[in-house]
Amino acid sequence: MLLETLKDPTALKTFSHRQLTALAEEIRTLVYTTVTKNGGHLASNLGVVELSIALHYVFNSPRDALVWDVSHQIYTHKLLTGRYPFFHRLRQTEGVSGFSCPDESEHDLFTTGHAGTALSSALGLAKARDLRGGNDHIIILLGDASMTNGLTLEALSNIASTTQRLIVILNDNGFSIAPNVGAIAKILSRLIQRPAYAKCKRLGKSFLNLFPGGSTCISALRAIKRRVKSLFLPSSLFEDFGLRYWGPVDGHHLPDLIYYLQCCQKASGPILLHVKTQKGHGIPDVATHPEKFHSVAPQKTKSTQPTFTYGELLGKCLESMMEKDPQVVAITAAMARGTGLASIQNKFPQRVWDVGMAEAHAVTFAAGMAKSGFFPVCAIYSTFMQRAVDSFFHDVALQGLPMLICMDRSGLSCHDGPTHHGLFDIALFASAPSVICVQPKDSQEWIDLFFSARQWKRPVLMRYPRECPQPWPPIRDSQFIPLAHAEVLEKGRDICLCALGPMVDIAQALVARFSAHGLSVTVINMRFIVPLDEVLLKKILPQHRLCVTLEDHVVYGGLGSILATWMALSGIHTPLYPIGWPNRWVEHANCDEDLQERYGLTEQKIFQCILERWKTRPT
Amino acid sequence: MLLETLKDPTALKTFSHRQLTALAEEIRTLVYTTVTKNGGHLASNLGVVELSIALHYVFNSPRDALVWDVSHQIYTHKLLTGRYPFFHRLRQTEGVSGFSCPDESEHDLFTTGHAGTALSSALGLAKARDLRGGNDHIIILLGDASMTNGLTLEALSNIASTTQRLIVILNDNGFSIAPNVGAIAKILSRLIQRPAYAKCKRLGKSFLNLFPGGSTCISALRAIKRRVKSLFLPSSLFEDFGLRYWGPVDGHHLPDLIYYLQCCQKASGPILLHVKTQKGHGIPDVATHPEKFHSVAPQKTKSTQPTFTYGELLGKCLESMMEKDPQVVAITAAMARGTGLASIQNKFPQRVWDVGMAEAHAVTFAAGMAKSGFFPVCAIYSTFMQRAVDSFFHDVALQGLPMLICMDRSGLSCHDGPTHHGLFDIALFASAPSVICVQPKDSQEWIDLFFSARQWKRPVLMRYPRECPQPWPPIRDSQFIPLAHAEVLEKGRDICLCALGPMVDIAQALVARFSAHGLSVTVINMRFIVPLDEVLLKKILPQHRLCVTLEDHVVYGGLGSILATWMALSGIHTPLYPIGWPNRWVEHANCDEDLQERYGLTEQKIFQCILERWKTRPT
Repeated sequence: MLLETLKDPTALKTFSHRQLTALAEEIRTLVYTTVTKNGGHLASNLGVVELSIALHYVFNSPRDALVWDVSHQIYTHKLLTGRYPFFHRLRQTEGVSGFSCPDESEHDLFTTGHAGTALSSALGLAKARDLRGGNDHIIILLGDASMTNGLTLEALSNIASTTQRLIVILNDNGFSIAPNVGAIAKILSRLIQRPAYAKCKRLGKSFLNLFPGGSTCISALRAIKRRVKSLFLPSSLFEDFGLRYWGPVDGHHLPDLIYYLQCCQKASGPILLHVKTQKGHGIPDVATHPEKFHSVAPQKTKSTQPTFTYGELLGKCLESMMEKDPQVVAITAAMARGTGLASIQNKFPQRVWDVGMAEAHAVTFAAGMAKSGFFPVCAIYSTFMQRAVDSFFHDVALQGLPMLICMDRSGLSCHDGPTHHGLFDIALFASAPSVICVQPKDSQEWIDLFFSARQWKRPVLMRYPRECPQPWPPIRDSQFIPLAHAEVLEKGRDICLCALGPMVDIAQALVARFSAHGLSVTVINMRFIVPLDEVLLKKILPQHRLCVTLEDHVVYGGLGSILATWMALSGIHTPLYPIGWPNRWVEHANCDEDLQERYGLTEQKIFQCILERWKTRPT
Repeated sequence: MLLETLKDPTALKTFSHRQLTALAEEIRTLVYTTVTKNGGHLASNLGVVELSIALHYVFNSPRDALVWDVSHQIYTHKLLTGRYPFFHRLRQTEGVSGFSCPDESEHDLFTTGHAGTALSSALGLAKARDLRGGNDHIIILLGDASMTNGLTLEALSNIASTTQRLIVILNDNGFSIAPNVGAIAKILSRLIQRPAYAKCKRLGKSFLNLFPGGSTCISALRAIKRRVKSLFLPSSLFEDFGLRYWGPVDGHHLPDLIYYLQCCQKASGPILLHVKTQKGHGIPDVATHPEKFHSVAPQKTKSTQPTFTYGELLGKCLESMMEKDPQVVAITAAMARGTGLASIQNKFPQRVWDVGMAEAHAVTFAAGMAKSGFFPVCAIYSTFMQRAVDSFFHDVALQGLPMLICMDRSGLSCHDGPTHHGLFDIALFASAPSVICVQPKDSQEWIDLFFSARQWKRPVLMRYPRECPQPWPPIRDSQFIPLAHAEVLEKGRDICLCALGPMVDIAQALVARFSAHGLSVTVINMRFIVPLDEVLLKKILPQHRLCVTLEDHVVYGGLGSILATWMALSGIHTPLYPIGWPNRWVEHANCDEDLQERYGLTEQKIFQCILERWKTRPT
């Protein structure tokens, strides 16, 4: 095993080309076996094995800075920078993170997970280097999909005025998570299919045919051909932005990659190297279905009972709603599969759109549709909605435009960690005036809230985790839920548990525990985070001697904060105890339970906490 | 007066070109006199008088949708759409808003105020029109500065895949609020200075010189020349994005504008018309100093005592800090003048940057600088920071990178209204783990916090309003404020007032009032919103029978929420009464006092509220 001998990437520089190729094969196999076991990003990582090796062969990390956009293509880099011994614990509790992680290695600069940030942060590094007078390189590995994101485009517009030394590697696999949409994708594909490129290819071929058998000669000539054409074909888009453009280069051909990266090393002026890679390269099944293998679930989950997801349910409910109601449209931002919209894209090609990794545009575009009388359903992960705060506040809430934002992956996203947990969405959106924010306790209520949202005629945010605790009932049996109606599931006298979403189950389980201690417990399924069910709460809270909020969100800014504020304003003085996640960055882990254990959010720990608080309450 | 005869824009269609020109002059004079009296956006509005007239002459609003980006260039449109009789009350309490406002007129589609949203929302309108099978036009008036914003760029990338009918009018005045920066500005300026364009100009001129005196003929030929060259010079950038490009067209030449807009009306495929306008056109002083006249203060403010602003203070403090500390750099997003950074741009050209209207990039770029050991000070208005939530959470807070974000215009921005008030910043940012969020009570404390922030080694957000209540003391006399240290200004027994920023003065004024009612009041200048001064609060709050928070922010999500949550977690049961702005969209007005009166936030009303609450507190 060559990998075993690699303590750090400098060792790589002594490798022969044959060894580098063997290393690529080793890595490819290891990534495939590890990811199919632990879960993780498969297709994107298989696509950049050679590119990552070439980057470390040519540049000197950490002196030269490698900035990985999104960083869901960082596994090879991790293997080359001393993390091979720990790689089998990828994405597991206390194991190697699936993303760039400065706590693991000085070779990782930023903890990332959202697409489109690398160009901006790397420009900051470059400017700092220039001010310092350093001569180190700043290299960005940017997926083509990130080119659809506004932040990348803002940075692109600022490159030429910021620095004269920056190397942008455009890792073009023609895909983001789904096939790319929009003008940038077309521009890139035109660059690859340019007549000049094709002509070069043909010329090269006929020229090479003159030398039958001379394999060394042929490959040398082939290399020259590739290099010459790549160096001289111009690209107006990138050159408009002040970048020198080289490419496209075959991203699986190590000698070419090394040659071009060495050219970049010596080049003056900011440069963009267009590298054509194939998602899932080297593993036929993955390469054929890269979307399916974008994010792979860990093996363990697969072997247990079937998992139902709210995403599938969204697909079913939307289909049913769209069949009856021609005003309903659906929008996602590069997440058609993850959010469940993929299942209806073919059925409603004119009413379901993927706008690319452009969450702000998705929401403001939806506002335009809503202004014209349509009812948009935007399906965006909770963590990605934090990119559309301004769009939601001004373009939706301020206009009072009815629409439904389905925030999938609210709560934990355990394998992915801090950049992917959906623990801040209430804090970010619930303070917006006139907004409705809800969370269902189960699949039946998900259906009810989904169809009710269409009737409320206001902007609605619905938050829910990936997994649905049970299969769903027939979708036609939905019941209208009036605005701001909570549900009393258990009526007691001592403690009132105000629970949200998956915490409702825990609250119900606590009833028997408290009962065993002689305490009588009320359980309210809150459903509405804003507006609160003020009528019910005004009546019920003062009848109790302790009120507890339970939520899958950080406490400061979450339901606990909202209820505490409302009680203070309303002069309700029942002692309140808010339970939820601490306002800390929560790491990745094997499973939700590991994190719940660590942060005191298991049923057992919650029970003990409340009991403790009960004993010390004012009397 | 032609304006008096215009009940709605259809009347315009019967006007002769001579009348249209006279109308432009009337409007220009009226805008100038009104804005110099009431305050408002002057330069941008003077620049689009002819363009707005031409738009209404050619298109049929409201059937055709006119979408104004930012809408600080909307005054002529307001005058042409029935708001002439009310225009003298521009930006005054219950008067015409300075921005697009659907409540005023069916000709205004969205309430706007942030740059870069128009293309996205208009694409939504266009898609809705296409689905409906309508044949109305969607026209966007987009400033060149908005082209530096990520949302515009996300939308640009989506145009061609979304609709085949859209008219984008690029109002290019070479300026945003400050002169434009970045690649897009260079691309536009290249378009205007293209050799082909210059050649056409020269050819046209020599051709026209053959016909001395024949003025009708000359102007006809001149028109042909202008039109031909504009229709056939290609622009790669916009065409890369699937837009047909026409231009540049003289934005102050009514016949040309009308001709081109009519072409756009008949064109197929999405089209971009590049219109060259001059900020402040027609008023020499404004045209010469457009930056100075971007936003004009109302006359009344000018006549009273001199106003000190925190922006000026930022300039002074930064200058002093940067002189001593080479690691300090400063960044703004098209707001160098408004935030006070303009005063040091010349002194530190390599360490002060304006990145254009790209707030997310400003913050992520700063993160890159911070990662390299620099200390960035980002000066961004509170309302615009809501565009950088994801950047702040992930690229700054998650990395734990030390920097200072100066959020100017926190609290009210009374003349501008709902899109410009800074009433949500605590809600949006204070839940981010490891963040420090502060607000000073006066200029001395502003200085102290500013210099202390450099020592805290963490991400710091400082919020403050535009106006500083007093001139500042010498900047060298700054005192270090340890993290999470509040200040007790008055020690009493009954009521504890926890006040923030400008509310500290009100809290102090309340002491005497309560004393007259036999109540003894404690006043705490909170300074730290997060982390709270837990030691002080744990000691002091239980000694009181009522605790009141006072803040210039919405209550839900603000200091009140944070203190309520902390008290609940800490088991402190002193009754709490949070006072601040309601979670509603607050309109524009003449002055802060009008809004404070309306929303119960004058000293008198706050006093009565607290007294009422005191009487009904639990005993």
